[in-house]
Amino acid sequence: MTRVAYMGPEGSFSEEAARREFPDGAELVGFPDIPSVISALGHKLVDAAVVPIENSIEGAINVTLDELIHDESPPPIVAERNLRVRHHLIARPGTGLSDIERVVSIPVAFAQCRRFMLEHLPQVQVLPALSTSAAVQSLVHSVRIAAIGNERAAELYGMEIISRDIQDGDDNTTRFVVLGGQPATATGRDKTSICCSIAEDRPGSLMAILAEFANRGINLSKIESRPTRGGLGKYFFLIDIEGHLDDAAVAAALEGVRGNSYILKILGSYPASSA
Amino acid sequence: MTRVAYMGPEGSFSEEAARREFPDGAELVGFPDIPSVISALGHKLVDAAVVPIENSIEGAINVTLDELIHDESPPPIVAERNLRVRHHLIARPGTGLSDIERVVSIPVAFAQCRRFMLEHLPQVQVLPALSTSAAVQSLVHSVRIAAIGNERAAELYGMEIISRDIQDGDDNTTRFVVLGGQPATATGRDKTSICCSIAEDRPGSLMAILAEFANRGINLSKIESRPTRGGLGKYFFLIDIEGHLDDAAVAAALEGVRGNSYILKILGSYPASSA
Repeated sequence: MTRVAYMGPEGSFSEEAARREFPDGAELVGFPDIPSVISALGHKLVDAAVVPIENSIEGAINVTLDELIHDESPPPIVAERNLRVRHHLIARPGTGLSDIERVVSIPVAFAQCRRFMLEHLPQVQVLPALSTSAAVQSLVHSVRIAAIGNERAAELYGMEIISRDIQDGDDNTTRFVVLGGQPATATGRDKTSICCSIAEDRPGSLMAILAEFANRGINLSKIESRPTRGGLGKYFFLIDIEGHLDDAAVAAALEGVRGNSYILKILGSYPASSA
Repeated sequence: MTRVAYMGPEGSFSEEAARREFPDGAELVGFPDIPSVISALGHKLVDAAVVPIENSIEGAINVTLDELIHDESPPPIVAERNLRVRHHLIARPGTGLSDIERVVSIPVAFAQCRRFMLEHLPQVQVLPALSTSAAVQSLVHSVRIAAIGNERAAELYGMEIISRDIQDGDDNTTRFVVLGGQPATATGRDKTSICCSIAEDRPGSLMAILAEFANRGINLSKIESRPTRGGLGKYFFLIDIEGHLDDAAVAAALEGVRGNSYILKILGSYPASSA
């Protein structure tokens, strides 16, 4: 049976993404953080890993990007999946909104539920957790405390949803990628992710890279910069383009990029998510 | 007396940056998080604010960028200051390394001290805090616990440094910016920060913006993307260029950028940090 690593404990959004990506009963294995998930794949403890890479409100998931950047031979991205994030306020059965004195979750979840918190729980103490599922799991130890997490976490840990869909706005979506296994073949509607660093720090050096794509009519769907860890002001660029490595125009553009870069890593070509 | 907002409590790296930037006895006022710091300036409770914007290992401080992006008329950036980050392991006086069962700090500090933690405290429980200074402050309540924070926090809260300089690598630097007050005049060695969104999502639209700078010999020192919060795949670009708004070439380039953008915000021109 295929073994798939995700960031746990059970009931995390990552587990939800992994269950949807592998609906036919793969064995899902939770790890405490994203580096451990990717490392489990590197050590062949699992066949694939599902990790978040971007959120529509919070932006890049830097820890994921950094693991891929700083890995000498990162596992290939073979698929992507967009998952709508729905946050609920969760507590022990029988707890009412007015009983709550403290709320526990990850900082990002608080940021995404700011309006609900201001309106309904302006005075509560806010406690940090390492994941939304760990927050829900921790409720078992105390009273007058609620967590922000998802429906499955509430079910798993025997808790109750007090308020549903407490996130600000409706377009809270996280993009996950599947790492490991066989590279995906071209479908005609693909994306390719690369990571590069610029050969020279002079006017136009980033532009020269982007020109390789623009001159061939290849659209960029994303560009992100991350520090090289070689000092302030030195960056890797993570670029997603439309098209597959097997497309002649993409292959030619990447050859051009290689000529303008110190380092070029091809992170993978995979079908673009339909959602 | 000038009043300056920073992210507290006292003993944070932000306070250290604010003290260095305003050495002549400005009144420093701590707020619990970055949005509150910037909001205090917006409501004229203070004359200036010092906020972190970028770290050489962790990259952009997204909450700062997002506050500036989503503010309709953000306060101007008038100065920048690079501060070396030195993390120490701190505990109650008399505590030894072997006494420690738990360590509290912010997730970023753990990430920056991974090697030390693996080598010296592989078995301890890791607890999240809202700031390094809040972590050190919390030590007063319990035993067998240490915090990761800076020297001033240890002094302020009557704690002892057990191990000095526990961060991985030596190039851990945070870039802070000063917001508010009079825009800085040109010094001949300046930076200008802008935020823009692209008018059309087609091949070459970001390149057209970068060409406005490259064609005039203006170097980019940074480009960062942040979600517009209008759905996955829609971004604002935060760009730092070398030069001042009063330079003719910079002014002309920005006119060109304006023609290619939905939104263009000039965040400020200020002297480039010498460090």
